[in-house]
Amino acid sequence: MRRTVLPGGVRVLTEHMPGLRSATVGAWVGVGSRDETSGHFGSTHFLEHLLFKGTARRTAMDIAEAFDAVGGEANAATGKEHTCYYARVLDSDVPMAVDVIADMVTSARLDADELETERGVILEELAMNDDDPSDVAHEQFAAAVFGDTPLGRPIGGTPQAIRDVPRDAVWEHYREHYRPETLVVTAAGGVDHDALCAQVEAALAAGGWPLDPTATPRARRTAGAPVPPAALELTIRRSTEQANVIVGGPCLTSTDPRRFVLSVLSAALGGGMSSRLFQEIREKRGLAYSTYSFATGHAETGLFGLYAGCTPARVDEVTALMVAELERMADAPMGAAELTRSIGQLCGGLVLGMEDTGSRMSRLGKAELVHGELLDVDESLERVRAVTAAQVQELAAELAAAPRSVVRVGPFGD
Amino acid sequence: MRRTVLPGGVRVLTEHMPGLRSATVGAWVGVGSRDETSGHFGSTHFLEHLLFKGTARRTAMDIAEAFDAVGGEANAATGKEHTCYYARVLDSDVPMAVDVIADMVTSARLDADELETERGVILEELAMNDDDPSDVAHEQFAAAVFGDTPLGRPIGGTPQAIRDVPRDAVWEHYREHYRPETLVVTAAGGVDHDALCAQVEAALAAGGWPLDPTATPRARRTAGAPVPPAALELTIRRSTEQANVIVGGPCLTSTDPRRFVLSVLSAALGGGMSSRLFQEIREKRGLAYSTYSFATGHAETGLFGLYAGCTPARVDEVTALMVAELERMADAPMGAAELTRSIGQLCGGLVLGMEDTGSRMSRLGKAELVHGELLDVDESLERVRAVTAAQVQELAAELAAAPRSVVRVGPFGD
Repeated sequence: MRRTVLPGGVRVLTEHMPGLRSATVGAWVGVGSRDETSGHFGSTHFLEHLLFKGTARRTAMDIAEAFDAVGGEANAATGKEHTCYYARVLDSDVPMAVDVIADMVTSARLDADELETERGVILEELAMNDDDPSDVAHEQFAAAVFGDTPLGRPIGGTPQAIRDVPRDAVWEHYREHYRPETLVVTAAGGVDHDALCAQVEAALAAGGWPLDPTATPRARRTAGAPVPPAALELTIRRSTEQANVIVGGPCLTSTDPRRFVLSVLSAALGGGMSSRLFQEIREKRGLAYSTYSFATGHAETGLFGLYAGCTPARVDEVTALMVAELERMADAPMGAAELTRSIGQLCGGLVLGMEDTGSRMSRLGKAELVHGELLDVDESLERVRAVTAAQVQELAAELAAAPRSVVRVGPFGD
Repeated sequence: MRRTVLPGGVRVLTEHMPGLRSATVGAWVGVGSRDETSGHFGSTHFLEHLLFKGTARRTAMDIAEAFDAVGGEANAATGKEHTCYYARVLDSDVPMAVDVIADMVTSARLDADELETERGVILEELAMNDDDPSDVAHEQFAAAVFGDTPLGRPIGGTPQAIRDVPRDAVWEHYREHYRPETLVVTAAGGVDHDALCAQVEAALAAGGWPLDPTATPRARRTAGAPVPPAALELTIRRSTEQANVIVGGPCLTSTDPRRFVLSVLSAALGGGMSSRLFQEIREKRGLAYSTYSFATGHAETGLFGLYAGCTPARVDEVTALMVAELERMADAPMGAAELTRSIGQLCGGLVLGMEDTGSRMSRLGKAELVHGELLDVDESLERVRAVTAAQVQELAAELAAAPRSVVRVGPFGD
């Protein structure tokens, strides 16, 4: 793994993977939906779409053709705390990918007509997400736990916000946040670090970015205003066959050293076929097809939830069973075999993930923007292996005692 | 790539990928939902679930723990013409994966109590799928085109079929179809062919399978009864924000030499951001977020469809636009640039896919059971590169002239 700060404060992190003929390249901007101010809601995600709609040098079709012509996969993702544009291509196409992505990041036109057309596309995307009941449950769960704070807002904005947001707001968002000192370029696979740095610098300069040799990267995001604990029960009516339910509450931040304890806890509680949720709810009782636990970290707080999709009539029973499993982890330490298995599961998954250029590219970006430390696999394995049953029990007790929210999506009366 | 027929007629195909520390191993049985007879509907998929529920030597928890303990990903998929059980693990865990999967394939218990519990799980899975409007559209599209034939039935069965199917029917299905001569084991990644053959043979023998040295593999499926052409319009009512629409009809079989022409046609029409559907419907008009074309081959027929998710009020307009794009491909040959780009997209995608152990494992299984020929990457690239604009136009004309079905899922009156 290598890290270089280019002029302008642009960070480049790469990981060379010998023997691979492909690479994934990502451009990360440390800005997400939580950074939007009133009147700009939805503009982070809107901007993500618009970067593909043309630059000073390229039409939307030029951008699409560049990746399609070589069988590459180009896409982007907006989160609450960062936005990432990425492409997986053959190693020989890395210079092209860097050039196109840098062009999009530096020189998007945000053409007014294209913007109006794209408004319709985004409204269709929101409608599609709204038709996915588990998506709705996850989004509403964050809204329940984080309440009326920037982290509680939907990443993509509401349909009304998308209909309302003017081009100027998106343009301001772009000009304010897409800058050399917020940009992190990461790549993994068949890439050469020095060559990539040179390509990135040349492409950003070609896009007209001032690359001040004395500039430094913007400091990593630190905690915003504290998020008041919420304990809400939300019921969202949908004409579905299943109920989708999530129960849980606030959790560790993304920099908390105990996040490795959390990963062991979540693996044991709801991480695989042998996990407690899967065994109790699916295998023993046949009440759900899908049930799992999940955790997300943010700068000043986090989210921990237990999910199940079940028959609407059994939703309270399933919710109580999930909570009972969390409480059981708080009441008694995990046995040695379960601890060993959970650690083995995480370590095996980590090593398997290292063969995927996309997940390594993503690890690099998150190390820089989210966790604030760049661990190699061996260091990560070491942290996971150091977790004890007592630590897991202690964290489970905290999670079980935290304010608890419940979100149910399904065919319930209003 | 190496292929060996073991005693009993068991086929083993492997592809060694130098430098990889992981491997994906799959056990394929050349039997799918189309092979079910009346009274057995849903039993192929039911059986897929039950193989994880315990064998003579292992409980369901033993199977789950075996993979979880090493961070492996074990899963299975049922199709209309085959069923596959697979696991991605570290190379050192391949012998374990072979042993567990072979145990499941040879020695599943189909315990009556476990079966009753699993009935509930499968009903939840069907309910989950029913809550996904694009899933519903795809399933109903096959039903529309293939009508009242075995290919028209849903893979997972209907809820009523799952409630009704008795243990005996699933057991009969298992005994009849899970046999040495129907089994194909494929693996790709950090695997050694000879070692894998020895492991497979030992594991199947341990499972009590008679491995007759004179037995030969069961011949590949050939065409069943001809499927009468259908042209149905189906409207499925769902309380969704979007309409999900698919228009299309019958297409090439899975062994048709023109399937490479079809792949170029589908790439150009609806395969990427620069494709005609994406450009016309999303980029120019903003009418959809997701729109694409797809093709599936079966022994005696196939399926070709154009999909979009859009505002319900615009569904007829979007359907007409999709059909117009297919007709435009029939009316005039593709330009040289578009042909080159489409071929480049497929070739790049093929090469990128070769770095994934799962897709290589899957290619091997489909080569043996579906296509009846095992092409290496260079041969596949050659076939794609040989496609001409005239061939694409000719095939587009046939597809445009074929009986056309339309399925709409959305908030439409009954």
